[in-house]
Amino acid sequence: MAAEPDILIREVGLRDGLQAVSEVVSTDNKVAWIESEAACGVRSIEACSFVPPKYFPQFADAAELVRRVRDLPETTVSALVPNVRGAEMALDAGVDVVGFVLSVSESHNRRNVRCSREESLGRFRDIAALRASRPEWRSKRLLAGLSTAFGCTIEGRIDPSETVRLAERLFEAGADQVSVADTVGYADPKSVSAVFRSIRRAVGDVPLAAHFHDTRGLGLVNVFAALETGVKEFDASLGGLGGCPYAPGATGNIATEDLVFMIEAMGLRTGVHIERLLEVRDFVESLLPHEPLHGAIARAGLPIGFENPAARRQEKTVHPGRIGVG
Amino acid sequence: MAAEPDILIREVGLRDGLQAVSEVVSTDNKVAWIESEAACGVRSIEACSFVPPKYFPQFADAAELVRRVRDLPETTVSALVPNVRGAEMALDAGVDVVGFVLSVSESHNRRNVRCSREESLGRFRDIAALRASRPEWRSKRLLAGLSTAFGCTIEGRIDPSETVRLAERLFEAGADQVSVADTVGYADPKSVSAVFRSIRRAVGDVPLAAHFHDTRGLGLVNVFAALETGVKEFDASLGGLGGCPYAPGATGNIATEDLVFMIEAMGLRTGVHIERLLEVRDFVESLLPHEPLHGAIARAGLPIGFENPAARRQEKTVHPGRIGVG
Repeated sequence: MAAEPDILIREVGLRDGLQAVSEVVSTDNKVAWIESEAACGVRSIEACSFVPPKYFPQFADAAELVRRVRDLPETTVSALVPNVRGAEMALDAGVDVVGFVLSVSESHNRRNVRCSREESLGRFRDIAALRASRPEWRSKRLLAGLSTAFGCTIEGRIDPSETVRLAERLFEAGADQVSVADTVGYADPKSVSAVFRSIRRAVGDVPLAAHFHDTRGLGLVNVFAALETGVKEFDASLGGLGGCPYAPGATGNIATEDLVFMIEAMGLRTGVHIERLLEVRDFVESLLPHEPLHGAIARAGLPIGFENPAARRQEKTVHPGRIGVG
Repeated sequence: MAAEPDILIREVGLRDGLQAVSEVVSTDNKVAWIESEAACGVRSIEACSFVPPKYFPQFADAAELVRRVRDLPETTVSALVPNVRGAEMALDAGVDVVGFVLSVSESHNRRNVRCSREESLGRFRDIAALRASRPEWRSKRLLAGLSTAFGCTIEGRIDPSETVRLAERLFEAGADQVSVADTVGYADPKSVSAVFRSIRRAVGDVPLAAHFHDTRGLGLVNVFAALETGVKEFDASLGGLGGCPYAPGATGNIATEDLVFMIEAMGLRTGVHIERLLEVRDFVESLLPHEPLHGAIARAGLPIGFENPAARRQEKTVHPGRIGVG
C-alpha cells in the first residue's frame, strides 16, 4: 500500500464538470473514467449528483454509477445531494461521502436551490438526522460545501464574516468537513488566506477543504494561499472541465493535472501518477469532443527531469488497466 | 500626480513578446502601444532589443522607437542589449534602463548568446564601464536578468545555489537590480520563495525583480510567492504574448492584465487602470491577428463591483487619447 499523501485531491469533473456539459456520457464511460483515475492514485472522486433526472439527464444514472464504483479499493466515492431525498438515494446506493451545498450569497442560494439559506441549513440538518437513523450509515461522512464563499454574479463580493458564520453553523448542524468554494472566480490569495484563518479562529482545528474555479486565472494561487493556512484537501476537475454558465468562454474548475503538478513540484506528495493522469485526460477529451478542455500541463508537457514519486512507486507495483470502454 | 504604486509592473510584450512573433509591427504602432499603455498607468516598459537587424527584423527600429517614447512622462523606458555595442546604441538613443541577460544554465547561455557565463559576466562589466564613461549616462540604471534561473529545456532543473551565486556576481559587476527569470516554466512557489530568500541572505536587501512565464500554469502563484518574500517589481506582457519556441502552444509571459487584476484584488495598488488596459490589449490583438493571446480576465471579465483605484483616479484627471495608429 502506498504512503499517505500529503495533499488529498478530489476529482469533481464527473459532477461539477459534467453538469455543465449537454452531452450525456454513458455509465460505462463514467465507470471507466473513475476506475482509470483511481488507478492513477486519485483517492477521492465525486461521481454524480442525486438530482431529478428530468432536469439533469446527465445524472439519471447516479445510483447505478455509485453501485458500480463504490467498492474500488482505497477510493472514497462522494455524491452531491440537494435534499434529504437525494441523500437517502445516495446512501442507499453506497456512497462514502454525502455532499451538500449552501450558497453564502442569499440571492445565489435562492436561484440555485430555490430556498433561503436558513431553509438550506434545515435541509442539511435533516440529512444529518437521516444519517444517524441507520447504524450502517453512521460511518458515512457529510461534506458541506459553501459555494459563492467569496463573491457571486448577483451580489458581487461577499462579506467574509458571512462565510465564517455559515461554516460555523454547518459544523453545528453535523458537517464532518466544510469545503469553501469560489464558484465563479471572486477569490484572491489574500481573501482566501483571511477566510480560512477566520474559520479556524471561530470553529477550531476542523477539517476544511477548498474548491476553486480558475475563472479569472487565480485558481492555483488560491490553492497555494489555502495550503499556507493548513488546508490539505482540494477539489479539481480533469482538463478544468466545468465552465461557468454566467461567463461564456471562461475556464471552470482548476485542472486536476495542473494541481497535481504544482503540489508535486513543491515537493509535496499527492500520490497521483501524473503521466497516467494525462492519459485519462485524453480519454475524457475523447468522450467530449465538443467541449474545450483547459490546463497548462497538457499543452506544455512536464519539465525535463520532473520527479513524481507516485510514478516511481506505481512502476513497481501497479499493473494499469487499459483506459476506455466501447 | 498619482500616488506611488505598491507594486511596479514592467510591460515586456514589446520585447519578450514581439521577439517570438514573425510579423513585424510598425514603429508607429509600437509607439501607439507604448503611449496608450503608459496612459493606463504602466510606469515601466521594455521597448525593444538592440540586436542585429539582420537576425531580428522586429527590432530594426529600436533606436528610433526609443527616441520617440523616451520623453513620456512618469514612464521608465528600458531596452535589452546583448553586449557593450548594443548598450552604447541604447544609451545613445536615450533609454532609462539598460537590460542585460545571463542564463544560469551554462548550456542555455551558450545556445542563447554563444558564449560562456563567465564571458557574459565580462560583457556585463564592460557595459557597466561604458555607463561610467560619460557623466550623462551615470544616472541610467543597469538591470541584469538571470534567465533559466529555475530550470531549462537542456539541463532540466537548475541548482538554486548557482542562481544565488550569479545574482551576487551581477551585483558585484555593477547591476542596480537583478531580475530572476523563469524562462520556460520550471519554477514553483516553493522554489521561488527559496531562491529570493537565499539571494537576500547572500547579498542583502538589494533591489530584486521577477520575470515569470506561465508555461505550466504557475506564473501567478510564483508572483505571489515572490511578493511574500518582498519582491515588488514584476515583468508581464499584455495578453501573455511571448510563447516558448521549445513548447509549441504553451503560453508565454504572465499576462499583464491578469497580474494587475490579482494584485489589485489583493488590495495592493499597481496604479494601472485595468479596463483601459484591456482596450490596449484589444489594440495589440488587432496588430497581431495570427497570434493567439492568452489571459483569464480578457475571457471572463472583471468581477462585479471590482474596485480599481487607478480607474477612479484617472476618471478625474486623465483625458485618454484614442488608441491606435493608422
